[in-house]
Amino acid sequence: MTAENPDLRIAQAATLQPITEIARRAGIPEAALIPYGTDKAKIDIAAVPPGDGPGRLVLVTAMSPTPAGEGKSTTTVGLADAFRLLGHRTMVALREPSLGPIMGIKGGATGGGHAQVVPMEDINLHFTGDFHAIQIANNTLAALVDNHIQQGNALDIDPRRIQWKRVLDVNDRALREVVIGLGGPGQGVPREDGFDIVVASEVMAILCLATDLADLQRRIGDVVVGLTRSREPVTVRDLQVDGAITMLLKDAIRPNLVQTLGGTPALVHGGPFANIAHGCNSLVATRLATSLAEVTVTEAGFGSDLGAEKFLDIKARTGGLRPDAVVLVATVRALKMHGGVAQGDLAAEDVEAALRGAENLARHAENIRRFGLEPVIALNRFPTDTEAELDAMLGWAREQGLRAALSEVWAEGGSGGVAVAEQVLEVIAAGGGRDFHPLYDPAEGIEASLRTIATEIYGAAEVQYVDAAPAALRRLQRNGWDTLPVCVAKTQYSFSDDASRLGAPRGHTLHVRDLVPKIGAGFVVALTGSIMTMPGLPREPAALRMGVDAQGRAVGLF
Amino acid sequence: MTAENPDLRIAQAATLQPITEIARRAGIPEAALIPYGTDKAKIDIAAVPPGDGPGRLVLVTAMSPTPAGEGKSTTTVGLADAFRLLGHRTMVALREPSLGPIMGIKGGATGGGHAQVVPMEDINLHFTGDFHAIQIANNTLAALVDNHIQQGNALDIDPRRIQWKRVLDVNDRALREVVIGLGGPGQGVPREDGFDIVVASEVMAILCLATDLADLQRRIGDVVVGLTRSREPVTVRDLQVDGAITMLLKDAIRPNLVQTLGGTPALVHGGPFANIAHGCNSLVATRLATSLAEVTVTEAGFGSDLGAEKFLDIKARTGGLRPDAVVLVATVRALKMHGGVAQGDLAAEDVEAALRGAENLARHAENIRRFGLEPVIALNRFPTDTEAELDAMLGWAREQGLRAALSEVWAEGGSGGVAVAEQVLEVIAAGGGRDFHPLYDPAEGIEASLRTIATEIYGAAEVQYVDAAPAALRRLQRNGWDTLPVCVAKTQYSFSDDASRLGAPRGHTLHVRDLVPKIGAGFVVALTGSIMTMPGLPREPAALRMGVDAQGRAVGLF
Repeated sequence: MTAENPDLRIAQAATLQPITEIARRAGIPEAALIPYGTDKAKIDIAAVPPGDGPGRLVLVTAMSPTPAGEGKSTTTVGLADAFRLLGHRTMVALREPSLGPIMGIKGGATGGGHAQVVPMEDINLHFTGDFHAIQIANNTLAALVDNHIQQGNALDIDPRRIQWKRVLDVNDRALREVVIGLGGPGQGVPREDGFDIVVASEVMAILCLATDLADLQRRIGDVVVGLTRSREPVTVRDLQVDGAITMLLKDAIRPNLVQTLGGTPALVHGGPFANIAHGCNSLVATRLATSLAEVTVTEAGFGSDLGAEKFLDIKARTGGLRPDAVVLVATVRALKMHGGVAQGDLAAEDVEAALRGAENLARHAENIRRFGLEPVIALNRFPTDTEAELDAMLGWAREQGLRAALSEVWAEGGSGGVAVAEQVLEVIAAGGGRDFHPLYDPAEGIEASLRTIATEIYGAAEVQYVDAAPAALRRLQRNGWDTLPVCVAKTQYSFSDDASRLGAPRGHTLHVRDLVPKIGAGFVVALTGSIMTMPGLPREPAALRMGVDAQGRAVGLF
Repeated sequence: MTAENPDLRIAQAATLQPITEIARRAGIPEAALIPYGTDKAKIDIAAVPPGDGPGRLVLVTAMSPTPAGEGKSTTTVGLADAFRLLGHRTMVALREPSLGPIMGIKGGATGGGHAQVVPMEDINLHFTGDFHAIQIANNTLAALVDNHIQQGNALDIDPRRIQWKRVLDVNDRALREVVIGLGGPGQGVPREDGFDIVVASEVMAILCLATDLADLQRRIGDVVVGLTRSREPVTVRDLQVDGAITMLLKDAIRPNLVQTLGGTPALVHGGPFANIAHGCNSLVATRLATSLAEVTVTEAGFGSDLGAEKFLDIKARTGGLRPDAVVLVATVRALKMHGGVAQGDLAAEDVEAALRGAENLARHAENIRRFGLEPVIALNRFPTDTEAELDAMLGWAREQGLRAALSEVWAEGGSGGVAVAEQVLEVIAAGGGRDFHPLYDPAEGIEASLRTIATEIYGAAEVQYVDAAPAALRRLQRNGWDTLPVCVAKTQYSFSDDASRLGAPRGHTLHVRDLVPKIGAGFVVALTGSIMTMPGLPREPAALRMGVDAQGRAVGLF
């Protein structure tokens, strides 16, 4: 993305339809709308009459991402607009952007070009306050934990074994490792602590997997904040503050309705990390969309090895979702990087490199079929792509027996996504998700689940438990937590746990360093490699280019 | 306040009028409304046509507060409803509550009984997200400062002399003193730091004193974040991120419109601390109210020595406001405490103690007259007050030549405030704020300003500069900052800097420990005694009683 990126200009030039009109289009009565301005609303789900029952669900995922950017959100938005153009009552369900990365590198996360959700500047900034509510819920809980210790520690919490970290929606590396409670007996118990970014909070994962407010409170109550001196888990319920924390989230759990540039109703709600959490928008939003729309298009984070696997094994299982088709976003640029081209050389035509890199895409397609689903490759066109490169890749897909089509939604909006949409409709007509099944059965234990994911999805030969993992595994077993689904935190750049191994590696070892129970979220995080849960800012943060114009509108978001 | 406090019940039982109707009543066109649900809205001031010019402005302040609570917000809201009952087009302008204390002790801060602003649970929780926006603006700036040092430190910022702290809207004593940047060279520069509560952020003070978005950006640019190694100030403008921080505040600067239980339009906007900041709602809200309403009732924090003095010397000066009358809230309970009764014995009748404690009230009344304004005492009735006590205090006021009336707005709403309102109208009719003038001229230097405040308002004999103050004073003079208005951070419980000296002490010494320039806010904070900028939670936090009911409504707020 460059400074002359036209996303903000396109978004601000668009004439938005009133949110009441968008709601009407979605089948949401005005009585269920809680407006935020004229172009955003939260939805009171209890006031929405049941729709015709579950419509079709299309999951958008991608090949292994590269620093070049693949345009997955753009493709998702444009594809939804394409279904609408084809006459289908459509909704799109997306994650909310995180402000920290926006001020750092990304500059925005609402699609791009003529395939965006709008009002883009509101969605990219504070939107309806969900992330702020999650931040204060997370941090109020942290303060209550330290206060419990300060005020006598009746639960005998071990200050060295508190697992509940504080969070901010800021990229702030200086807060990764801190010592708190300094300054004397009136200022708490000194201990090591750290801050994560808001999207890494277990509260975020909980909000995105809870079926309703009562389920949210139950999950908040289940959260393990730390261990006693005798190593027994201490929960939020033990602290008796599950009610207060739930109260802080009672509005945030309501899905947010906005629109795409093509006028498609869009639910933009929740946004957990796709490594240490499951990386999809909220279950309540996806369910609302599928209950109302003929076609719902939704997205999972990172590549299919992380985001789609978790969507299918965690979110779909939790929420009883059944996807009908999967769209795999690929770009010539990413294919060339997986084929060995350096990032600085991507503008030059290199058909051979793209074909070499296709092994990565092939693995993702093969993996999707392991879930009983049929992938459609959306080849997302970039200005530097040559016809020879695009033709070669579409030809390659045909040879492999894979459905593929060019996506030109960035430049053309919905009409640029019709070719992909038509392929998806053919998959659905052929019985789509009839054979869908999750990959593993958590009841067989976390070692079995991890082995299945590692060998079948990552192409690994084996799983090794290193560092803190063996002891953590025993602790999971002792507490009866080893039959929860597993959420792997792994680099998004490679199928392996080594970010530099592009393409389609096989026979490697997956190193599990630690296993962290997230009992409220309902999964165990398996940490592989080193995963950053608090990003930093770059040398030239995007913030340097941001501001407001004379009309008070945002400048420098893209 | 006790657990059976009916405030939330009364507030939730009320039928709210649509915010469009409240706006119409206030003279705000629908085109200027940015709705947040059906009962809250932000105001696009540019879309509000100018009113008939400045209406009357009534400032509500109080005698020196006690832990018993005086009901100043309740009186403010009820008094506004009384003016409306008397046929005047009225608005009330209040501060927004802070979530930290709500989860700790207070439980809510939107008035009480039948004198509340509503929807109280929304206003007390996330409201329209202003405090969240201030938090992330403050903390994004903090991350940009540490990142500047991490990425080469071109401005040569001294990590030991960074003045910009991080903030959370959480009562979290464990964050008062911390060490950040631990964990190696990739994780920032280790240094001592600390967190304040959001209402103590200079961003909050700036938002509340800025006249518009351009002035906000100018003030943000002026903020001094720290010193170079050669002790030169480093500003946000030097860091080139005044635009980005302003962008994060572009919605927060818009006033929030809600209503009182009596249907009076209420602007609830901003909420800086009343010790280390000036303690009043935003200037843009107060100006909007006075431009539209015949009578605007507003409130300043703590007692008149802190809140009213700062309203009159800082906010009124900055914004060109001219108050017409001042209401001084007093209670029999507070009078008895200032007369020597212990908090546990306040329920027992004690006329003599109340009369002894009146010396505190007399000093506040005398102080208000020093600004050329005439006070009206509102004796806020509590259930434990006896007729003998109330009669004695009203009689005392008559003898002193002070206007006074009973306020019964908690029990009766607006009709319980008519007696006070009528006295205020008499003051206005007699020429009210004609002779208003600030107390001091900042151009004479900060020592002169402090001497005037200390001797005339606090009754002190002298000002001593101790600890860091002498060096800080020289630094102010060297940088040309010693002609800014002064904002005294002092205990609210006493005219002196010793919280235990109740009543009306005289002849004491005001000890100034430090002088902290807040160049963006446009004042210098004079620290006396030890001022807590990050509160803690009590042994039994209010959070323990909070939750949601089956309809998703808040429980345990009051």
